[in-house]
Amino acid sequence: MAGFASQGSPVATTGLTQGIHRSVQLRPEARALVAQGTQRSWREFAERVARLAGGLSELRIQPGDRVAMLGLNGPAYVEYYFAVLWAGGVIAPVNVRWSLEEKAHCLADSGALLLLADGVHLDEALTLAQGSSSLRALVGIAAADEVLPGEVMPYEELIAQSPVLPDARRGGQDLAALFYTGGTTGRAKGVMLSHDNFLANSMTALVNLGIREDTVHLHTAPLFHLAGGSRLFTITVAGGTHAVIPRFEPEAFLHAIEAFGVNVTVVVPSMLNALLNLDGFDDYDLSSLKLLSYGASPMPERLLREAMERLPHVDFLQSYGMTELSPVATMLEPKYHVFEGPHAGKITSAGRAVFNADVAIQDPAGQELPLGDVGEICVRGPMVMQGYWGQPELTAEALRGGWMHTGDAGYMDGDGFIFLVDRLKDMIVTGGENVYSAAVEHVLYQYPAIHECAVIGIPSDQWGEAVHAILVPKPSMQLDAAEVLAHCRKHLAGYECPKTIEVRASELPKSGPGKILKAELRKAYWEGHERRIN
Amino acid sequence: MAGFASQGSPVATTGLTQGIHRSVQLRPEARALVAQGTQRSWREFAERVARLAGGLSELRIQPGDRVAMLGLNGPAYVEYYFAVLWAGGVIAPVNVRWSLEEKAHCLADSGALLLLADGVHLDEALTLAQGSSSLRALVGIAAADEVLPGEVMPYEELIAQSPVLPDARRGGQDLAALFYTGGTTGRAKGVMLSHDNFLANSMTALVNLGIREDTVHLHTAPLFHLAGGSRLFTITVAGGTHAVIPRFEPEAFLHAIEAFGVNVTVVVPSMLNALLNLDGFDDYDLSSLKLLSYGASPMPERLLREAMERLPHVDFLQSYGMTELSPVATMLEPKYHVFEGPHAGKITSAGRAVFNADVAIQDPAGQELPLGDVGEICVRGPMVMQGYWGQPELTAEALRGGWMHTGDAGYMDGDGFIFLVDRLKDMIVTGGENVYSAAVEHVLYQYPAIHECAVIGIPSDQWGEAVHAILVPKPSMQLDAAEVLAHCRKHLAGYECPKTIEVRASELPKSGPGKILKAELRKAYWEGHERRIN
Repeated sequence: MAGFASQGSPVATTGLTQGIHRSVQLRPEARALVAQGTQRSWREFAERVARLAGGLSELRIQPGDRVAMLGLNGPAYVEYYFAVLWAGGVIAPVNVRWSLEEKAHCLADSGALLLLADGVHLDEALTLAQGSSSLRALVGIAAADEVLPGEVMPYEELIAQSPVLPDARRGGQDLAALFYTGGTTGRAKGVMLSHDNFLANSMTALVNLGIREDTVHLHTAPLFHLAGGSRLFTITVAGGTHAVIPRFEPEAFLHAIEAFGVNVTVVVPSMLNALLNLDGFDDYDLSSLKLLSYGASPMPERLLREAMERLPHVDFLQSYGMTELSPVATMLEPKYHVFEGPHAGKITSAGRAVFNADVAIQDPAGQELPLGDVGEICVRGPMVMQGYWGQPELTAEALRGGWMHTGDAGYMDGDGFIFLVDRLKDMIVTGGENVYSAAVEHVLYQYPAIHECAVIGIPSDQWGEAVHAILVPKPSMQLDAAEVLAHCRKHLAGYECPKTIEVRASELPKSGPGKILKAELRKAYWEGHERRIN
Repeated sequence: MAGFASQGSPVATTGLTQGIHRSVQLRPEARALVAQGTQRSWREFAERVARLAGGLSELRIQPGDRVAMLGLNGPAYVEYYFAVLWAGGVIAPVNVRWSLEEKAHCLADSGALLLLADGVHLDEALTLAQGSSSLRALVGIAAADEVLPGEVMPYEELIAQSPVLPDARRGGQDLAALFYTGGTTGRAKGVMLSHDNFLANSMTALVNLGIREDTVHLHTAPLFHLAGGSRLFTITVAGGTHAVIPRFEPEAFLHAIEAFGVNVTVVVPSMLNALLNLDGFDDYDLSSLKLLSYGASPMPERLLREAMERLPHVDFLQSYGMTELSPVATMLEPKYHVFEGPHAGKITSAGRAVFNADVAIQDPAGQELPLGDVGEICVRGPMVMQGYWGQPELTAEALRGGWMHTGDAGYMDGDGFIFLVDRLKDMIVTGGENVYSAAVEHVLYQYPAIHECAVIGIPSDQWGEAVHAILVPKPSMQLDAAEVLAHCRKHLAGYECPKTIEVRASELPKSGPGKILKAELRKAYWEGHERRIN
């Protein structure tokens, strides 16, 4: 009889589309989605998702097939997520900020059979489709009266002409998404995330953010990233309302809060900075806003303090994690956003393990370190990715010893709060995007006149951190910053290119074995700044 | 590469002991457990659990082995749950109200290797151990100075003398528990529930009951049932505080709320009735109480209304489910506990699907029925049991078509609320008409002098089955059968009115969670008769 013990029940899983069924059952006429000029009830949203899934099925998308998307946020992006899953497929969003080469890599690596693209990215999508051996069709999201090239299938027509498809009802450990993240030593990797992974993350968001069916959530962070995208799942599980704007832009963001009665949204530090610097910020009615969650890059304490002062009715909550963690491992809850009293000091931490995460600080041998000692932040739990797509060695390395190794260095205090100290992987987080110094340095070293270089993050009110390059020219050679930058633009995404370039005549400081001492280089820039991660 | 799609990550599960580790990390000195004369921090609790697990291991308990418990609620019951899981074992609690024969069946069927028993049940446990071929040892929970028979291992000694065992870290779909439920047609069946099953239930409790680390939960319903037991998992996941009293007893219950600052607890209707009828109820300080959750049997509206009036600061929440659902499938949230306004009428329902449950009303062929039509309530989702232990046919029958069949009849309204009509098995077919006992009982409970009642079908030459009502009057009140019948005629169809009425002086027989045992009531009437549905 012991043989029963490890058998799962065939009916004991659920998936990411269940929230749609439940919302249609409980609140068919409630708002599922609002955007400029668009409002859809859960009944309407479900029907469009089921028809779009029908269209995908007619384009021969089978369970497990990948479908890519290249576009700004919008109603179609939300429908794309759920229609692909409804058809049994796997979403594979493409970062619009990447270079064409990087986008092509992401499409080829995922083996996506279809690409959806919005009007802004249609030309680029056509170029990508021409160069792709796997893409079977291109679906164009355009205004109803816009004429699309003949080879592009119009999105609205696909929905209108396709039958309602029964939900494939994938769930549990079925693969739901590939999210590509930049690699330190090469190309972006596809992070494999399952239905269970996202549901685990949704649970912690429901519990800690108080998201419910009456919550209106503004999706403003890009939906090709999980910082924004994971909330699509949370809101659907809760049966709340998705509010969408194409991209973060301070006026549009504030207007959306007012117009849609937004209660919760996610910002990265650079967004918050832009908001607070906006003339007229105080003229908007932000009384509906209850909670601002933030993360993705270090939040300058000055900025946070100002935001808390100017939005006294709003709770602040920090999330820390990474794509490989679906994406949240720890949260700093609103009650720890104080500067005095028994919780003082916690605000400089990244918070505590969410209730389904096991977080530990480990030494390189995988041993748990005593409280206060700096080591690698490691995580176990149902939010940990299945692995890197097609990269068993990288997967085994990241998940060695049964823990996800974040590559971040930190320590834990006696109350379980995690304090980030540095990134083991030498990564810069700028405007919510991860930039790997090594990737930028790799491109710089291809420039003939550069003898040596170091790319570091320096403090920036606008970006949290800004990419800064320190260059040493080869003997008797000159370096022209504008030319170096042009070289970078050819090979890197815009956000990866240095914002500032500094040319030095002398050798960079090095350790015994010849490693450039970045900590020393950074010191000059961070003196006097509050920076948790350095 | 598609082969990756169904691979689970080895680090992407969690288990029911993780909450202990997390609480020790975040709040080591916070109260884990309080009871009369006992208070333990999470650090102390974790150590006792790990030592008790060490003791189980020295008694050769291996992962997957079942360990039984026979006792009233108490600190040891909480430790038993988690120590067995910590050692990798499976809990198999025994209903103390069962006959010796039924208890022996439960022990033999589960193949339990160990039995823990409290002082009250030690003699019975010794008898059971003597008659068992599988039990390897008997552990007696007794006061420190109490002398136990030589063949009984003292619980406190086992903890004191055993080493701390590393957590077996079982989780995911590993079997965590066998809970025995009475069969309508034979012996009790062991419901197999996994770590994931209980975690799924804990998620809905966290979200809908607002249970957090500062929540003190009183465990008063018997821990050998899931109505009470499931909250042990919820509180541990949240890192809250377990408050325990041996059994429900009105004064002890109210005193515990006052003494421990209880915020949340579970009651069944018969408990609530006893509380409200207690002289001195209003003398207790119940200001800490925030939420009363109730379920397990139909709540008479009159009783609920009185409770809401007398506890105006308390939220009421109804849960509906069964052991096979770990145990909750639907909840009626506090906001629907109103008698007027847009939500009026929902209070007579069993609530709506919790966010991870898929609930449908099906006809006998498994087709979903239109809104308002009565059919069988069926459930899918991560809370559905793995099956009945050693009963593949019964499992396949219960889970046919991919749904857990509750055996309850009900309908759904346009807002997804489930209205229970009756247990399918508790329907009376009289003169070709279906009579739902619950509907008749609902009317009877509106009659002021009735303390409790049960409506059953009894053999009738004329009608096949006749509707029979068994009534217990309130203390020092009289019941006149003719007047009761006149009351029924006002509210019910002729065929629904009892054909016969029987007045009893003593309480009706009840199961652990306070459900009236109709099978027992029927038995006297059906002896020698054939009845298909009983």
